[in-house]
Amino acid sequence: MAVRVGIFGYGNLGRGVELAVNASPDMELVGVFTRRDPSAVHTASGVQVYAESALLEMTGQIDVLVLCGGSATDLPVQGPKYAALYNIVDSFDTHANIPAHFADVDKAARDGGKLGIISCGWDPGMFSLARIYAESVLPGASTYTFWGKGVSQGHSDAIRRIDGVVDARQYTVPVPEAMEEVRAGRNPELTTRQKHTRVCYVAAEEGADLERINREIVTMPNYFSDYDTTVHFITLEQLHEEHSGLPHGGSVISCGTTGANGENTHVIEYKLDLDSNPEFTGSILAACARAVARMAAEGRTGCITLFDVAPAYLSPQSGEELRAHLL
Amino acid sequence: MAVRVGIFGYGNLGRGVELAVNASPDMELVGVFTRRDPSAVHTASGVQVYAESALLEMTGQIDVLVLCGGSATDLPVQGPKYAALYNIVDSFDTHANIPAHFADVDKAARDGGKLGIISCGWDPGMFSLARIYAESVLPGASTYTFWGKGVSQGHSDAIRRIDGVVDARQYTVPVPEAMEEVRAGRNPELTTRQKHTRVCYVAAEEGADLERINREIVTMPNYFSDYDTTVHFITLEQLHEEHSGLPHGGSVISCGTTGANGENTHVIEYKLDLDSNPEFTGSILAACARAVARMAAEGRTGCITLFDVAPAYLSPQSGEELRAHLL
Repeated sequence: MAVRVGIFGYGNLGRGVELAVNASPDMELVGVFTRRDPSAVHTASGVQVYAESALLEMTGQIDVLVLCGGSATDLPVQGPKYAALYNIVDSFDTHANIPAHFADVDKAARDGGKLGIISCGWDPGMFSLARIYAESVLPGASTYTFWGKGVSQGHSDAIRRIDGVVDARQYTVPVPEAMEEVRAGRNPELTTRQKHTRVCYVAAEEGADLERINREIVTMPNYFSDYDTTVHFITLEQLHEEHSGLPHGGSVISCGTTGANGENTHVIEYKLDLDSNPEFTGSILAACARAVARMAAEGRTGCITLFDVAPAYLSPQSGEELRAHLL
Repeated sequence: MAVRVGIFGYGNLGRGVELAVNASPDMELVGVFTRRDPSAVHTASGVQVYAESALLEMTGQIDVLVLCGGSATDLPVQGPKYAALYNIVDSFDTHANIPAHFADVDKAARDGGKLGIISCGWDPGMFSLARIYAESVLPGASTYTFWGKGVSQGHSDAIRRIDGVVDARQYTVPVPEAMEEVRAGRNPELTTRQKHTRVCYVAAEEGADLERINREIVTMPNYFSDYDTTVHFITLEQLHEEHSGLPHGGSVISCGTTGANGENTHVIEYKLDLDSNPEFTGSILAACARAVARMAAEGRTGCITLFDVAPAYLSPQSGEELRAHLL
């Protein structure tokens, strides 16, 4: 029987989940749920759109609800609220707040007899898996995570808030020399500035003070001041033509040693090169929905992460098929 | 309480497991078991050596027995025999015979109330994990596995059996152009010859017919005839000086698409660069011993593979620590 999936939130990520669920013959998309006026939301697949309030009445029709809101204000509320009613999947990615979010979802899910999986994306998510496997096999390994080249939506938004900016796109770019040091097993100590650079494409208002905008960007605390940042002013047309995609990716590189005196070095790298960040993330959420449906059917409740999911649960293939074809 | 580990078989792999267990504070090495005369075996760590027959009497002293024999003749016998008595870990790597070996170990382990995990290494093993995660997230993805540059012991042995050869070392080398095609997301169709080349270093007897040896190598069916093979004749001294290590590695590269018309391509690569194949493999077996001890303690019996192991079981860290530091 197909896993019946609901999607709450229909931005880029919700659209990515919609594509992934519809690409999976063992899953069925029941509906999209929104805080907006449902009549104003048109889904790519034509699946029905419901108001959020419908979620209170549809618990019997949905096996897993995929929460596609943001980590700042949406998921901390929606996670516990809906984990009490549904098996849920989310992509909560504020690293520092994961323990608190885990505890909130865990309590709600246990009380409701449901199962929730949080922080499913590629970081946290697939990159976390790369880290745990490497560090479990090579105790004491040093692990480095590099992001990009890719679009950071948070940094792009930060630039857009500057006076005189019409639109902007920010790319996070790993420093090739730093990656090569790590890949060579040299365990370098790297500052924030030595690991990544930031490249910004900005369309400014006519007559805006470009020097001031540039200065406000490169000195912006938290976002840019700790990085070497380059700002390119281009036209709005150019920005939309050349920078409309949402590519991303990166590498997790772990370096550990074995031997009586640590004389043998082993380097493990997990690398992603993604044309569409939200579609890839949506694909991960869909695979996690499959796993959650199965684990919940076995009686598991509470909150888990990908660390707690045996990989076979993510795959539509049977154990026999997996052993014959992928082992 | 520490996981009490026994090692059966003390070749390169057994030595690798010994190092890994001793590097893990949560594990304790009880002993090495051998089919040889125990008094003739000296362990690197000084741990006691027992005859194989002692295994029949030590079931109460060992939580997990790691089988370090070969896949051709040792493990098909030892796996089922000892899975009836112990929780076991093996590195069975004859892909075509995995289903039969799984069934044999499964039956023995179920009958004995034990848990066995088979095919734990890097291929099968870590590479299998790379394949299942990629194909679960991106249904329909094409996955390519490249091995090397690294020493193939089976191919080195095959050369050594040729008349006039004193010693030999064979490197499997992936074809860089093929890897680049795959990394670029072009989904090439690749023949065996297009994926890997084979490079052989051979020390021959004085006066041996080098042309004949060369011909016998490059035309050897199964091992070399389907590959472009290069043979270098060197002195035995050179062979031991320059080719005594057992490096290996490789890449699993998966390429899949998302989007309404598959317009977005995603490339996932998992890459290993290992100074010592047996020490890295031994480290994986040790992590699997940890997982098996925990899962057996929870009541799990029968045969499993890494596909059935939630990654958290492999790590010595608690769930809280993992979520705080690696997620």
